Amino acid sequence: MSPLPVAFLTDYGPGSEHVGALHAVVAARCPGAERIDLAHDLEPGDVRWGALLLARLAALLPASAVCAVVDPGVGTERRGLAVALGGGRFVVGPDNGLLGPACAALGADDAVELTSADHRREPVAPTFHGRDVFAPAAAHLAGDGALADLGPAVEPTSVVAPQLTPARVEPGRLDALAVGRDRFGNLSLLAGPSDLEAAGMRPGDRIWVLVGERRQRAAVGRVFADVPRGGLLVYVDSHDLLAVAVNGGSAAERLRVAPGEAMALATIASPL
Amino acid sequence: MSPLPVAFLTDYGPGSEHVGALHAVVAARCPGAERIDLAHDLEPGDVRWGALLLARLAALLPASAVCAVVDPGVGTERRGLAVALGGGRFVVGPDNGLLGPACAALGADDAVELTSADHRREPVAPTFHGRDVFAPAAAHLAGDGALADLGPAVEPTSVVAPQLTPARVEPGRLDALAVGRDRFGNLSLLAGPSDLEAAGMRPGDRIWVLVGERRQRAAVGRVFADVPRGGLLVYVDSHDLLAVAVNGGSAAERLRVAPGEAMALATIASPL
Amino acid sequence: MSPLPVAFLTDYGPGSEHVGALHAVVAARCPGAERIDLAHDLEPGDVRWGALLLARLAALLPASAVCAVVDPGVGTERRGLAVALGGGRFVVGPDNGLLGPACAALGADDAVELTSADHRREPVAPTFHGRDVFAPAAAHLAGDGALADLGPAVEPTSVVAPQLTPARVEPGRLDALAVGRDRFGNLSLLAGPSDLEAAGMRPGDRIWVLVGERRQRAAVGRVFADVPRGGLLVYVDSHDLLAVAVNGGSAAERLRVAPGEAMALATIASPL
Repeated sequence: MSPLPVAFLTDYGPGSEHVGALHAVVAARCPGAERIDLAHDLEPGDVRWGALLLARLAALLPASAVCAVVDPGVGTERRGLAVALGGGRFVVGPDNGLLGPACAALGADDAVELTSADHRREPVAPTFHGRDVFAPAAAHLAGDGALADLGPAVEPTSVVAPQLTPARVEPGRLDALAVGRDRFGNLSLLAGPSDLEAAGMRPGDRIWVLVGERRQRAAVGRVFADVPRGGLLVYVDSHDLLAVAVNGGSAAERLRVAPGEAMALATIASPL
Repeated sequence: MSPLPVAFLTDYGPGSEHVGALHAVVAARCPGAERIDLAHDLEPGDVRWGALLLARLAALLPASAVCAVVDPGVGTERRGLAVALGGGRFVVGPDNGLLGPACAALGADDAVELTSADHRREPVAPTFHGRDVFAPAAAHLAGDGALADLGPAVEPTSVVAPQLTPARVEPGRLDALAVGRDRFGNLSLLAGPSDLEAAGMRPGDRIWVLVGERRQRAAVGRVFADVPRGGLLVYVDSHDLLAVAVNGGSAAERLRVAPGEAMALATIASPL
Repeated sequence: MSPLPVAFLTDYGPGSEHVGALHAVVAARCPGAERIDLAHDLEPGDVRWGALLLARLAALLPASAVCAVVDPGVGTERRGLAVALGGGRFVVGPDNGLLGPACAALGADDAVELTSADHRREPVAPTFHGRDVFAPAAAHLAGDGALADLGPAVEPTSVVAPQLTPARVEPGRLDALAVGRDRFGNLSLLAGPSDLEAAGMRPGDRIWVLVGERRQRAAVGRVFADVPRGGLLVYVDSHDLLAVAVNGGSAAERLRVAPGEAMALATIASPL
């Protein structure tokens, strides 16, 4: 039986030696497994955006073992977990919120705490559980190893969920957190299409995008070309999140907003 | 029969979630296919440089299916295409100029427009045809699926070519566009070795590099060490393009030139 | 017999076309070989850090062929080598110091100079031996080709070692070079745990970190959380090197230190 693919999602940085170490460990422990890089350019320590992306990217994968590591508390008391998700997928990583949305989206059938010394690289480096704990666990699962070999069962419902502040919506206004920024400077908000609808905003509407005291005109649309080059677009992105983009430019730069900061959308007719 | 390798060339950013999504989709739809990252660090929307690199990198590949996406007009009327190239290679991507040089270099035997709903992820995200249209089409071809399954045939000669302004050459002077910049700050020009020869410049010559009102001394050479550390070198690069480099430094920074800007080379003896 | 995995370590930049070219060449010449990216984000030309990482990452690999290219002197008289290391591993690359620590750590059984025109892409680009010399050599070895096919034997002890200035240690003080910086801004020093011990510094100690005239308070610890958020930590990193980190931040930015610069650690009680 051929091994499951092993996928990786980290904040280690694209092309970094830390990513290379994960791949080398998996290649050594589970020869022949396909290895898939899901994302490595997360902002250091951005557990929340990592968690949201993990849920979306894991859903695209076939049966596989995902090694997910955004782990600012590495070496502290936070648990390391392996979870059997729906669709024959597994995910291993720190229990700091990173795994919550994937469990919610795909279902968490079983979970164990990674305590067994049999499936680690020893001695475990206190600052690199990715290489010494999580990658070996993912390789074990990809090679058809049993989940139970990795440690004692824990309640799947005990997996930590990240803090996801819901959008505040009223007719003509929507307040939400910027939660992710991609390579193009497109900003994803912690809000979905139903929030936009509840605020009474529709494709074609002209609206304000508000950041602190500043406001800029935008249009609600579907594709970047719905606004002129340089124009500001509010749309539902490929993650099914509300997002702000500049056609041919960077919304993050234009708005001077970083993930974690608050933004609002407002109907132009509405009082500010 | 084992599947063809699937290769990727995008402006999605190294290690980005968008690249991860392409890989996940191909891994799910064409298990066992080798996946090859050709380039992901293209400047956002730089179709021309993407097109030139695609032609060069595709020529290095074995029979394979290339998923090429530099697509600032995603979701507009530009066509999505799949083209059978020479050597058992296929390429899929937007028909915005990106595919032209690869077709010219490798030969375009057959082409179809990607209209079939059978080989897409539905619903197609208006801003992410890479994930929902192009990657599934590449996976289909890699798994020995027929080109004709993907949509109606189009004339291979109708594939759009990018605008490639030829260099202007006279004895002692060569004007050309900077067209690409690599990680080291080396600048590739839209000019080749025959242009250098036509301008009467030879390895060992001292020349000017001119950018707007500024000029700097350079030498024509073959390798970086042909000039002292910090010196400016004009050479034929590994893409067979004229290029400018700084030995141990960045020509793009030194000259303050970005792709798309005009430069000139001039024999030092010549009048300016 | 299935081919060996081929691994890559370069300063070409993550997601760059140069990395893509290496992968394409290996995929074409050694179909079915697993390909592993060890690191591509090295500072351009940083042979020393590349050499130290190569030794550590190669040790994690199974039997494989590593294509290692940090090669500022490409096209000059420096040799190109292929070396048989311990554990069924091979490494190919420029003989400029990059290969030395891997040979020392894993053992160098045999070595050849890469002179055979039979296992190159011809004509060899003077500035891209990675694509035209080293990747084809790695593909040859991965496909069970003989080392001796690649060129004449050279003495394994003749492989160049990089300059690695040892730390200067006295009780209460340790002077060392910053030698690497990762994505998080963690700085690795050219010093190990025994140096820390020789300087009489122990986990829990409060110490100074000195850079030129500036000094900052730090604590010796094991994990980032041993200091408060924003605090400065001195620890043994996952490469078994002394390192400096900021919990939740970047030590390189805080200390304004780049690899190659001198730093010191001093017991707070000690006279400065």
